[in-house]
Amino acid sequence: MPIKIADRMQQIQPFFVMDLLARARQLEAEGKTIVHMEIGEPDFPTPAPIIEAGRQALADEQTHYTPALGLPALRKKIAEYYQKDFQLDLDPRRIIITPGASGALQLALAVLVNPQNKVLLTDPGYPCNRHMVRLFEGETVSVQVDESSQYQLTPELIKKHWDKQTVAAMIASPSNPTGTKLDRQSIEALIETVDELGGTLLVDEIYQGLVYDQQNFTALSSSDQIIVVNSFSKYFGMTGWRLGWMVVPEQLVDAIDRVAQNIFLAPSTLAQHAALHAFDDDSMGIIHQRRDEFKKRRDYLLPALKQLGFKIAAEPQGAFYIYADCTAFSDDSFKLSADLLEKAGVAVTPGKDFGESDAHKYLRFAYTQPIDVLEQGIERLNSFLLK
Amino acid sequence: MPIKIADRMQQIQPFFVMDLLARARQLEAEGKTIVHMEIGEPDFPTPAPIIEAGRQALADEQTHYTPALGLPALRKKIAEYYQKDFQLDLDPRRIIITPGASGALQLALAVLVNPQNKVLLTDPGYPCNRHMVRLFEGETVSVQVDESSQYQLTPELIKKHWDKQTVAAMIASPSNPTGTKLDRQSIEALIETVDELGGTLLVDEIYQGLVYDQQNFTALSSSDQIIVVNSFSKYFGMTGWRLGWMVVPEQLVDAIDRVAQNIFLAPSTLAQHAALHAFDDDSMGIIHQRRDEFKKRRDYLLPALKQLGFKIAAEPQGAFYIYADCTAFSDDSFKLSADLLEKAGVAVTPGKDFGESDAHKYLRFAYTQPIDVLEQGIERLNSFLLK
Repeated sequence: MPIKIADRMQQIQPFFVMDLLARARQLEAEGKTIVHMEIGEPDFPTPAPIIEAGRQALADEQTHYTPALGLPALRKKIAEYYQKDFQLDLDPRRIIITPGASGALQLALAVLVNPQNKVLLTDPGYPCNRHMVRLFEGETVSVQVDESSQYQLTPELIKKHWDKQTVAAMIASPSNPTGTKLDRQSIEALIETVDELGGTLLVDEIYQGLVYDQQNFTALSSSDQIIVVNSFSKYFGMTGWRLGWMVVPEQLVDAIDRVAQNIFLAPSTLAQHAALHAFDDDSMGIIHQRRDEFKKRRDYLLPALKQLGFKIAAEPQGAFYIYADCTAFSDDSFKLSADLLEKAGVAVTPGKDFGESDAHKYLRFAYTQPIDVLEQGIERLNSFLLK
Repeated sequence: MPIKIADRMQQIQPFFVMDLLARARQLEAEGKTIVHMEIGEPDFPTPAPIIEAGRQALADEQTHYTPALGLPALRKKIAEYYQKDFQLDLDPRRIIITPGASGALQLALAVLVNPQNKVLLTDPGYPCNRHMVRLFEGETVSVQVDESSQYQLTPELIKKHWDKQTVAAMIASPSNPTGTKLDRQSIEALIETVDELGGTLLVDEIYQGLVYDQQNFTALSSSDQIIVVNSFSKYFGMTGWRLGWMVVPEQLVDAIDRVAQNIFLAPSTLAQHAALHAFDDDSMGIIHQRRDEFKKRRDYLLPALKQLGFKIAAEPQGAFYIYADCTAFSDDSFKLSADLLEKAGVAVTPGKDFGESDAHKYLRFAYTQPIDVLEQGIERLNSFLLK
């Protein structure tokens, strides 16, 4: 007799790009070269000083559990980072260390979402958010956004979609897959709107440090009643370590502690000891260099894609993604992504991975490879699409 | 306006021992010495060859994501371990690498439990299990067990408590907090019972290697339709690395992959590379020595507690816990644990952390400290309880 699988699994989907990635690896094993523009992970390894701190922690036998909410010293370091970079005083008690930003989101949703409660999200947006809400039996309201609002929620959209069951809205700035961000004024308007509606605003700032043309800021400067999720993965180059953090309203700390004790016990001890050195001058020097390199890549790739015929209506200002309208070449971006892989040797992510509305019109390009590789990608796209 | 916290948080409780631990640290800061018999974590650091493998992985810049279900090489290593130690052929595809056994349990329950579905558990038992079921809106049925069944479920108890909403039963062998285990025949009877009832049996084997008087075995030898959770934490001494695994029926692999992609992305890369060397001869040599040391500690502590007047009706055969009836000294083990800390300088865990039925009669002693420390603890207990 087959095991009965829980209903939620009907909505919890895989990343479509995973199949594409598996196929790409197969092609590579057959000797073909593939230009990877699908991977949402920096090509750089973790900065050397952070690696060295990890090696030292191991030499010091730092292999036991830490407290559930993280090493007090790391919570303090992060508070100092907000003080230094944003002149913001945060009580380290409100800073929760988590197993990746994914862990942070799990904790936040576990504490906020009852069954049938609704959470507003953007479509397109990061797909795990939707699935994570479903995990806890909540419902997502996918709000279609477009270039007119930089693919972000607006007070009007929030008011329009909010009802009595809605408890939260989630935004990401800069966003995956669009790379667009909210300015301070827009974030403050969203905070005010959600506050008036009696809900909680969750702000994904995992790409917060990867902003290219403007002054970097945090939504925490505008409110201490929002939840801000951040991570050592993208900006600090620590993806594989699985370490993130969030800053929560004081009122939620105890409840989050209880969930964390029960579902995680604690975040990785080693990752935490390494991260203690993520804010050191030598680490930050490397991290800033890499940010500048990402900017160069964007400044190469964005005009190159436009010149090929992709439409990019809202210019990406951060993260390492470009969300491009590919209707000049196909009405079916999912099929196009498969063709590009098979026939052009270029791997990109289909819009389908980020939502449903207009997804068939879009591809996401990640500039997580060096410029010479991106150039090769553009050449291949050129030959295939314009031949 | 305060944020409305989700209803599930009314049932998701903290570990009571955490307050005790905080108070113990405070007393230590004031210069008092505390004998720690409350901590469910081996005192040993991770074996040196595993630490060295971690250091090497860092030197090799192994800092990117792995696949969601883990490094293929590690899944294969674990399959080889089952082959070598238990003459068991497992398809590595069925072996899922997870962020700790906690992560494994989350994945399993996400895939099995609909809201209002019921899961049978023992009382006393590991409290996180109950809270994790609640997290996914399932209900736990706490089945009171006692020494007559070695504090384990029996086919009769399962049949008695099973109804149409029940989808699974969870057992742990050896168990926390009792250290008792199921023999092969008993496990097979439970497998058969749950199978007949059309449910799934989850077997917690995280203390599987820590068995002292009998031949070690795995429930997987008896069925490929159960879910077995294991971990690198306790037996392999890797608590702080947060790495576990589970073996699942082939039918569940794809659903579990989807949940893992969405809620974890992947387990720690570094921990996985280190764990590749957990099964090496030099690592296993150290691990076996430590197991022998735990046996010595149990063989010291068990008669010593009995001599003091604690009743231990079912002898612990594994893990590193003794669940002791303290009614000779108090009818309120919670208050007794507080008194022992304040007045005798001995930290132990109150029964309340492991359930409700008869919890006030019990204390859990962990033998995760060297024998000379345990001796000190016994002396202090002796002075305080028998003065």
